[in-house]
Amino acid sequence: MIGVVAGAGPFAGLDLLNKLLDETAAATDQDHVSVISWSQPETIPDRTEYLLGKTAVNPANPLLTQLLNLERAGATVAGIPCNTAHAPAIFDQIEAGLAAAHSSLQVLHMIAEVGAFLRDNHPQIERVGVLSTTGTAVARVYPLTLEPLGFKVLSLPETTQTTQIHPSIYDPHYGIKALGKDAPHARKLLLDGAATLRMSGAQAIILGCTEIPLVIQEKSLMGMAVIDPTRVLARALIRQSAPDKLKPLLPGIKGQNFL
Amino acid sequence: MIGVVAGAGPFAGLDLLNKLLDETAAATDQDHVSVISWSQPETIPDRTEYLLGKTAVNPANPLLTQLLNLERAGATVAGIPCNTAHAPAIFDQIEAGLAAAHSSLQVLHMIAEVGAFLRDNHPQIERVGVLSTTGTAVARVYPLTLEPLGFKVLSLPETTQTTQIHPSIYDPHYGIKALGKDAPHARKLLLDGAATLRMSGAQAIILGCTEIPLVIQEKSLMGMAVIDPTRVLARALIRQSAPDKLKPLLPGIKGQNFL
Repeated sequence: MIGVVAGAGPFAGLDLLNKLLDETAAATDQDHVSVISWSQPETIPDRTEYLLGKTAVNPANPLLTQLLNLERAGATVAGIPCNTAHAPAIFDQIEAGLAAAHSSLQVLHMIAEVGAFLRDNHPQIERVGVLSTTGTAVARVYPLTLEPLGFKVLSLPETTQTTQIHPSIYDPHYGIKALGKDAPHARKLLLDGAATLRMSGAQAIILGCTEIPLVIQEKSLMGMAVIDPTRVLARALIRQSAPDKLKPLLPGIKGQNFL
Repeated sequence: MIGVVAGAGPFAGLDLLNKLLDETAAATDQDHVSVISWSQPETIPDRTEYLLGKTAVNPANPLLTQLLNLERAGATVAGIPCNTAHAPAIFDQIEAGLAAAHSSLQVLHMIAEVGAFLRDNHPQIERVGVLSTTGTAVARVYPLTLEPLGFKVLSLPETTQTTQIHPSIYDPHYGIKALGKDAPHARKLLLDGAATLRMSGAQAIILGCTEIPLVIQEKSLMGMAVIDPTRVLARALIRQSAPDKLKPLLPGIKGQNFL
């Protein structure tokens, strides 16, 4: 049974549950994989605030508690659809806690799964660009995981990051958190960011914030593969629990496979 | 904590989780209500097959097991987003099982909540029309619950039900299960059914199958209030667990409030 820590944040949790259904080859209701989703958003403090030193409360502790609850309920493999929760300062603490509790729950690392996905399906790619919140960028969540795997991770200049990309998610007037999927100005800012990363040499674009796939649904952009980490995590969870039910990817040229 | 039996079927489960977020007045992730969702679709046999006597396996048993699992995990109130599971032959068995297990979990009855919603928000309504699968119609799920509350429940002639309404959901070419929300022919058939029910005197239309709200998103149709039982259930679950977080309804004229 798949476990999902769905409260960080609740919309990302819902999106992962949706993608678990979407990536399953099922003809009837009964064909779908078993999933327990645990959403206690009020118990999980903001991840970025912790990473930026604005609070000393590590969100690892409630995340660990909820993972152990999921294991007790019957989950054997689990995922956390939140990019920032995969910063080492948080995720390492979760893993230490699982070990201390003698847990046998397999918690997939979403960012490491993105690396494995790129290696397996886009073997020619060496340079990836990341669109994310400033928290994920400052905590170097993607470089810390992908660079040891041999990828060069490209990010945007600080001014672009703080005045265009972060506001595309958070701005109360035009941001995705305020408007949802119909946020044309946010989409334009993100596409501009993708174009800049393309000019810097990016061969793939990682949508490194769970809100971004709401406004960028293309599978490739300007010749770059588009990688949605939530969808990669959904596929990895199905692969670990019911590999025969995993939908095939869309094959492209030169050995590439697209989400 | 709210519990959701999400596997009957999994898309309806996802829809309820979505509507729980949608009906919560929340400014941040942390404001959202706590929800455990338990989806084990392969364990829950088809409800309609049981009601029509095609199988002797009562889906009440796995539904009961999953409700007790939710209670053990911490849920205090729960819902089952499946119209057919509320047929007395199934739901009464669930309630008996909960009593035998000395459970204190409060399981809301989705159809009874629809009745309470109508009484509280559309006090002038006496006659309601139901659009549903043939299973829900034959099992008289809505009349059995709503008529004792004083409502007259109108259904479509059998031919219309079996050749237009049921196929609008199940047809492999144009049905909602096949096409999702972009199913224009299914929508047309359902609107035709709503018009027929209007001519029979219906003052409200109940979307009595969890697929129908995908193609009918209006809050009123031809002067009839549109009632989405999944959204009513979402609101009832929030009301029972965190009433201060329930979003207000849309007020209309003559004391009516719309979903």
